[in-house]
Amino acid sequence: MKKFSVPGFRFSASRAGIKQNHQSDLALIVADRPAKAAAVFTTNRLKAAPVLQGQKVIRGGRLQAVVVNSGNANAATGPRGLRDALATAKAAAQSLGISQNLVLVSSTGKIGVPLPIAKLTQTIPQAVAALSVSGMNDAAKAIMTTDAFPKIHAVKGKIGGRAFTVAGFAKGAGMIEPHMATMLAYILTDLDLPAAAMRKSFKSAVEHSFNSISVDGDTSTNDTALLLASGASGIPPLQPGTTAWKVFEKALNEVCQRLAWMMVQDGEGATKVVEIHVTGAKSAASAKKIAYAVARSSLVKTSFFGEDPNWGRVFAAVGYSGETFDPSSVDIFYGPVALVKNGLPRPVSQERKAHKIMKNKSFPVMIDLKQGRGQAQVWTSDLGYAYVKIT
Amino acid sequence: MKKFSVPGFRFSASRAGIKQNHQSDLALIVADRPAKAAAVFTTNRLKAAPVLQGQKVIRGGRLQAVVVNSGNANAATGPRGLRDALATAKAAAQSLGISQNLVLVSSTGKIGVPLPIAKLTQTIPQAVAALSVSGMNDAAKAIMTTDAFPKIHAVKGKIGGRAFTVAGFAKGAGMIEPHMATMLAYILTDLDLPAAAMRKSFKSAVEHSFNSISVDGDTSTNDTALLLASGASGIPPLQPGTTAWKVFEKALNEVCQRLAWMMVQDGEGATKVVEIHVTGAKSAASAKKIAYAVARSSLVKTSFFGEDPNWGRVFAAVGYSGETFDPSSVDIFYGPVALVKNGLPRPVSQERKAHKIMKNKSFPVMIDLKQGRGQAQVWTSDLGYAYVKIT
Repeated sequence: MKKFSVPGFRFSASRAGIKQNHQSDLALIVADRPAKAAAVFTTNRLKAAPVLQGQKVIRGGRLQAVVVNSGNANAATGPRGLRDALATAKAAAQSLGISQNLVLVSSTGKIGVPLPIAKLTQTIPQAVAALSVSGMNDAAKAIMTTDAFPKIHAVKGKIGGRAFTVAGFAKGAGMIEPHMATMLAYILTDLDLPAAAMRKSFKSAVEHSFNSISVDGDTSTNDTALLLASGASGIPPLQPGTTAWKVFEKALNEVCQRLAWMMVQDGEGATKVVEIHVTGAKSAASAKKIAYAVARSSLVKTSFFGEDPNWGRVFAAVGYSGETFDPSSVDIFYGPVALVKNGLPRPVSQERKAHKIMKNKSFPVMIDLKQGRGQAQVWTSDLGYAYVKIT
Repeated sequence: MKKFSVPGFRFSASRAGIKQNHQSDLALIVADRPAKAAAVFTTNRLKAAPVLQGQKVIRGGRLQAVVVNSGNANAATGPRGLRDALATAKAAAQSLGISQNLVLVSSTGKIGVPLPIAKLTQTIPQAVAALSVSGMNDAAKAIMTTDAFPKIHAVKGKIGGRAFTVAGFAKGAGMIEPHMATMLAYILTDLDLPAAAMRKSFKSAVEHSFNSISVDGDTSTNDTALLLASGASGIPPLQPGTTAWKVFEKALNEVCQRLAWMMVQDGEGATKVVEIHVTGAKSAASAKKIAYAVARSSLVKTSFFGEDPNWGRVFAAVGYSGETFDPSSVDIFYGPVALVKNGLPRPVSQERKAHKIMKNKSFPVMIDLKQGRGQAQVWTSDLGYAYVKIT
């Protein structure tokens, strides 16, 4: 596998002994200098201790280190959990000789089990010692729980003739044994970005990537997406609204969407990634709600697995989305094949064509409501035999 | 099987040739005289033609006949579907010599396929000729699609020393091949009920039965629940607010809940029925939203199948329900076994006890939020291997 790197950042992966399979379970990301930081956390009311702690430190807008442990979520662990998250940050800060307000902690794994905090803090010095500019791939492996493969993607480009990088790694939101799923994503760039505009662009990028996927419809206690900007490219600070800013946003969106896509692809039991594309809705929010109703329907997802062009299930899911629309205006396409036009089915020959489209590993389902200009895309996986066996 | 009957009603089951397996697919319910009628229809925006037609005829508050066909849902069939639903009502009205405004039509089965209307109308005279007071069991079979068993339940009681009956039959809302699920329920009583109060009691009974189950989370295009009161018991008209009315409501609730329970039990691949009981919520609506979030979670349902007391999945589903609550106030019980108290896990020995509870065919999961007096119960099934194989 190609080694990824981003100027201004070093990485490491260590074994703290939290995972029982002796695999690496402690990832460290360290910036050479405090980096600009923006984060999006889970909306679940049950927030894990590191998320509660992370919401505080991110207010400063700058971070220099991120400590991620897999194998234990430090969720539903009460006041002790908060103390443990703080102790982890403190240990990293001490080893690195920086303020603990510059350290963000993430955890993923079992819920309701206290963190083996001594194992973690004892391993941090060796994690610091192992930091390397080419350690991102190993870090991507260290944050995995039951992910089938590490998720990592980079975009390189030029602004004003000088090279920049946006790269990221993530773990999936799929069905995770034995306790919970967590979506974690760390995006790194060597650009220099003003904090407020960077937050805004990241929020939008997350909305159209990690917040536009449906694997099992559940939202975890630990979900965290983080963007760090080191400025190490030497490119002068970017200003929002400029062409250069658009180049950055394009790269950021590509990295987030590619990582999100890999999460869907890694949905346990998934054999296909399907893009549910709703157009002509009354608003973007309405389109997203409809797309999610379709993307989350077990009936729809099993029909994708069976390569059965069962537009009735898609149509009915649109119908129970809670959004208002005129059923006699609805068109439904599988790829380029129209199965429903103005609310009425097309000839059976179209279903045979759609069945062929569904044999692909990935295809779009387009639902046009013709009610307005709102549109949204949600990526979902199929629901196959392996689903229940794994979970 | 015991033969059910309700004074004032006759039933029949016939073969119209809509189902391809040569089983009965046409059920008829006829009252000796126009009966008081109340109905609850699907909230899906994509309503089948018979539902659109039924919403009109129910306004009169009186019905004398119900025609139900299985094998074809007459949904997404446009203006032709509406004409076919009307033609079905007309054929029944002519055969019975009654007004077509006293006939309700229901359909269940494939979506997007025109009704073979000639087969249906030609069979209606023989369906009328076959009417019998003891035909309810056969009618219950005729409305089945992929239901594993017919669903029928009766309660007999006395008011003022005179016997009355509330009985009903239904078909399930589970995963239905090859196209869509439909929930149909017909409840019949020989009591004499004032229309407005009857509507109110039925709406409440449906809310706490058919609208409190989650099999796959989908809402169909054809869902219909109907209550007919013949008054044939000879008991004087009941008045709401009296003890007699409460006796009626109790019987009505039992019949609806028993039929709803059987629907969950018949959820394809289901091996267990689990009652999700939320208490201490800010309102009944909030409790129901939380109960549904838990009941619909694939992660939770697969843990029920695996008899794994995975309270973390339950807690996380409460967390993403969208309702506000204090995680540090939450208790979670599996049967009588406390797994979470004040947001924190109990010792692992409790999980072993809960595992034993989960070996039962049915058990309750209680979530106490301690935020208010709102409560709700939702029944759900587990999600096992058979689920994907069948669908």
